[in-house]
Amino acid sequence: MLGQMMNQPLLISSLLTHAERHHGTREIVSRRVEGDIHRYTYRDLGRRARQMANALESLGIATTQRVGTLAWNGYRHMELYYAASGAGMVLHTLNPRLHPDQLVWIADNAGDQAIFFDATFLPLIEATAARYATVKHFVLMGDRSLMPAETRIPNLRCYEDLIDQSPDHYDWPQFDENQASSLCYTSGTTGNPKGVLYSHRSTVLHAYASIAPDALNLSSRDAILPVVPMFHVNAWGLPYAACMVGAKVVFPGAAMDGKSLYDLFEDEGVTVSAGVPTVWQGLLGHTEANSLKFSTMTRTVIGGSACPPAMLKMFEDHYGVQVLHAWGMTEMSPLGTVCTLKGGQEDLSPAEKFAVQSKQGRAIFGVDMKIVDADGKELPWDGKTSGELLVRGPWILDSYFNRHGEDTLRFDAAGLGWFPTGDVSAIDPDGFMQITDRTKDVIKSGGEWISSIDLENIAMGHPAVAMAACIAAKHPKWDERPLLIVMKKPGAEASKEDILAFFDGKIAKWWLPDDVVFVDAIPLGATGKMQKNKLREEFKDYVLPTA
Amino acid sequence: MLGQMMNQPLLISSLLTHAERHHGTREIVSRRVEGDIHRYTYRDLGRRARQMANALESLGIATTQRVGTLAWNGYRHMELYYAASGAGMVLHTLNPRLHPDQLVWIADNAGDQAIFFDATFLPLIEATAARYATVKHFVLMGDRSLMPAETRIPNLRCYEDLIDQSPDHYDWPQFDENQASSLCYTSGTTGNPKGVLYSHRSTVLHAYASIAPDALNLSSRDAILPVVPMFHVNAWGLPYAACMVGAKVVFPGAAMDGKSLYDLFEDEGVTVSAGVPTVWQGLLGHTEANSLKFSTMTRTVIGGSACPPAMLKMFEDHYGVQVLHAWGMTEMSPLGTVCTLKGGQEDLSPAEKFAVQSKQGRAIFGVDMKIVDADGKELPWDGKTSGELLVRGPWILDSYFNRHGEDTLRFDAAGLGWFPTGDVSAIDPDGFMQITDRTKDVIKSGGEWISSIDLENIAMGHPAVAMAACIAAKHPKWDERPLLIVMKKPGAEASKEDILAFFDGKIAKWWLPDDVVFVDAIPLGATGKMQKNKLREEFKDYVLPTA
Repeated sequence: MLGQMMNQPLLISSLLTHAERHHGTREIVSRRVEGDIHRYTYRDLGRRARQMANALESLGIATTQRVGTLAWNGYRHMELYYAASGAGMVLHTLNPRLHPDQLVWIADNAGDQAIFFDATFLPLIEATAARYATVKHFVLMGDRSLMPAETRIPNLRCYEDLIDQSPDHYDWPQFDENQASSLCYTSGTTGNPKGVLYSHRSTVLHAYASIAPDALNLSSRDAILPVVPMFHVNAWGLPYAACMVGAKVVFPGAAMDGKSLYDLFEDEGVTVSAGVPTVWQGLLGHTEANSLKFSTMTRTVIGGSACPPAMLKMFEDHYGVQVLHAWGMTEMSPLGTVCTLKGGQEDLSPAEKFAVQSKQGRAIFGVDMKIVDADGKELPWDGKTSGELLVRGPWILDSYFNRHGEDTLRFDAAGLGWFPTGDVSAIDPDGFMQITDRTKDVIKSGGEWISSIDLENIAMGHPAVAMAACIAAKHPKWDERPLLIVMKKPGAEASKEDILAFFDGKIAKWWLPDDVVFVDAIPLGATGKMQKNKLREEFKDYVLPTA
Repeated sequence: MLGQMMNQPLLISSLLTHAERHHGTREIVSRRVEGDIHRYTYRDLGRRARQMANALESLGIATTQRVGTLAWNGYRHMELYYAASGAGMVLHTLNPRLHPDQLVWIADNAGDQAIFFDATFLPLIEATAARYATVKHFVLMGDRSLMPAETRIPNLRCYEDLIDQSPDHYDWPQFDENQASSLCYTSGTTGNPKGVLYSHRSTVLHAYASIAPDALNLSSRDAILPVVPMFHVNAWGLPYAACMVGAKVVFPGAAMDGKSLYDLFEDEGVTVSAGVPTVWQGLLGHTEANSLKFSTMTRTVIGGSACPPAMLKMFEDHYGVQVLHAWGMTEMSPLGTVCTLKGGQEDLSPAEKFAVQSKQGRAIFGVDMKIVDADGKELPWDGKTSGELLVRGPWILDSYFNRHGEDTLRFDAAGLGWFPTGDVSAIDPDGFMQITDRTKDVIKSGGEWISSIDLENIAMGHPAVAMAACIAAKHPKWDERPLLIVMKKPGAEASKEDILAFFDGKIAKWWLPDDVVFVDAIPLGATGKMQKNKLREEFKDYVLPTA
């Protein structure tokens, strides 16, 4: 017997319709590639998204076919978010920071029918246009003045022409909420990138969960500036959450430097922002150098990688800005945990609160998580025991795009599927999770796990160390033992014994690296992360002195 | 093409599982029928709900069969909420304030298999037990000491015995989220009560929407005291929302007087409460008489009927408690609108804010609303034009229980169904809705609508008037014209002309009642509302002097 409630699918278009009807005059402000500040309202967004939906259909793009974008955070990109998904097509956000070969590979793998791109990326499209297998339309996201006089791009179109030529009446179609809505590729360190295919249902449920007071706490009174790019897991879902609550939105466009961001924060009364630690480094550099404060910002979401403690302290103590430490993955839409205090924790001392806030947080409703040992047995939540982190929930990946058959999930005794995150973490009795390592990086010594990240963080505190990576080296008795690879600061001196002595009292004895190797350079990836897989390859036959 | 996200149904059991895993030590405190204060945790709730689920199955109650409850707000009632719905049965909350005949009729109509009742209602069940057609089990919600020595109730069982006899291992079944979860009857003024059958999906989505910062703003840091009964639209969904966020819950049991409530608020650090205006009248009477303040309460949800302006002012100005004016219906799970300020309204003057807060609020995400004229044409949102209020959303009724064929909804040109609320309201340009009348009470004069409530409110401001009802009287030219029916205060004197003169300058000329009739009494219903349908019947042949 079914309930007798309205059968109303959760569709992305309903977010836009809600914003248009209930928050029609609320502003969306964008710093444009054109250089100026553009402002309009949700009502304008709704009208132009309907025009763009008509335009997409007139280009011959069919239901669930992919529409690629290569664009900064701006109102035209938001229009495409709603026009493509709302019309039943799949929005595919391409990452312009990838190598052109990879970009072409991804667009082909996705089967993109069109690529919409900001003027910034005109050279990139000029260079690659001939190579895409499925793309039929290239559209420059600007007005006539931005169109090149000459181009090798076949049949290049102008975004504003498409809008102008399209009627603004469009009835958003109603369909199964499980239909695909958008696509985002992860760039794994090994193998080809893999696509994560979101649905309307997963997107709307994720938005509901993300606006909750215990998550990002978003309301119509907020002015949200997403620094996190719209090509990176849909800017953590903020373009959807903003419509859900009718918040003001401020888009930074291509200008991500500290001064540009700060000016926008202040000029537009931004109350909440979101981004990775490196962006905030730039912003705080600017505010520090110029003795500036934030006059309207109350909180900022920090994710992507762990927030350095010094940055957390600086935001909270010096600027009075609450840091919302968050954790997620492309495979999770992305939000899994957010670090907000629980009932009973209001009275903790500042130091105790700081310890809580240093963690990645607790599961938002919809996400469940657990840590397991090598045999899949669930481990206790004592804040000490580390295990592989598994998650489940309605906005978490079931299988990768076009790879239905693969065994992506692990099934428990009750038959429920869990996604293995590849992270190693500990969960405390209050449910606060802290990432301690990646499964591929953790060192498995005699069945026990040693966190490579902990050892690296300690080593990098040594005055002579510029960078340190800790990897597993083979050991006949313990299977694996930690090997520390150190790059010294220019001109600095330190012996193996100096480095090892530095660990004294900071870790359990058996965690102490078995050896230290000094190198001239540690390989870094495009995002600035150490490429430990390359180091593992290089040292795969290394013989430890303890072996 | 479907998205490739986990196919995880939205089930009521997932709310409990989340609370147990992520907020296991958070407290649930109840004032018991037994007279004492009982306290335990979400972990205990989870364990006992699993025991009760086993017990329900051992009683032979099958999937989607109805489990009736006749109980106050307390932890055992909450256990049944999760045990029955979680196990796939339908929780049916019976209203003990109804006439015994009506109670029996509703239990029969619902096909209840069991009735669980608080000791308070033992006499009621003793008197009616023989009359239920489908009820096989009667369970007294208490321990052995509360069981009567002698009883006419066939096979009366003890709740705590059922718990004690049942194992605490139970795997919550996974099923279609559209399956029926709970049932609540509306008591219309005419005809038999009608059942509203909620689903797991509607319940969980309603909880998501209700906790949002722009709605009830519920977090794990809250301690919620639902004064609104759990037999009245599931206490406005608070038992579900509480598990979703892991808030502390404080249940008042049967003691709803001002002192008992106040003591509980203070003793348990309650931060937010919810109820109808009459309850707050009692509470404020107690605090005023004893010069008390609230030391932890930050806000209170007021719904069920419009919050009197004086009460709103008293809470906000004198007690510093934010009033969340809300509107909904049993048919809406119940939340439709909540009155929280929007971005840009923070800077309104206190008088302007007060004017906004006097309205019933704006739609929470998921609910859409519109006002229409007699032809179904949508009316403008100008804050002045009144029309019939229609709503739609995933937690809004599609058809009444066991009445699938009836035309409950109205369909628009796009084929979308809307539920006619029976309310007449105006919506301002910011989307704030204000109820101005009931459709059956509004006076249709020459195609234009006159609010009976407005005229009554003005008339009741006259010093000689104790009560006033305004109904439509037939008119040859205008179809309907207002007829004012007045009950004077004892010993007070006023003529028809005095009363009509009192409207001068307060309304448009054409709204002025065509006649005034003085009566000795105006009939009132069980909830204290004027029974205007009886007056309409009495005056159906009344000839207006203007006719």
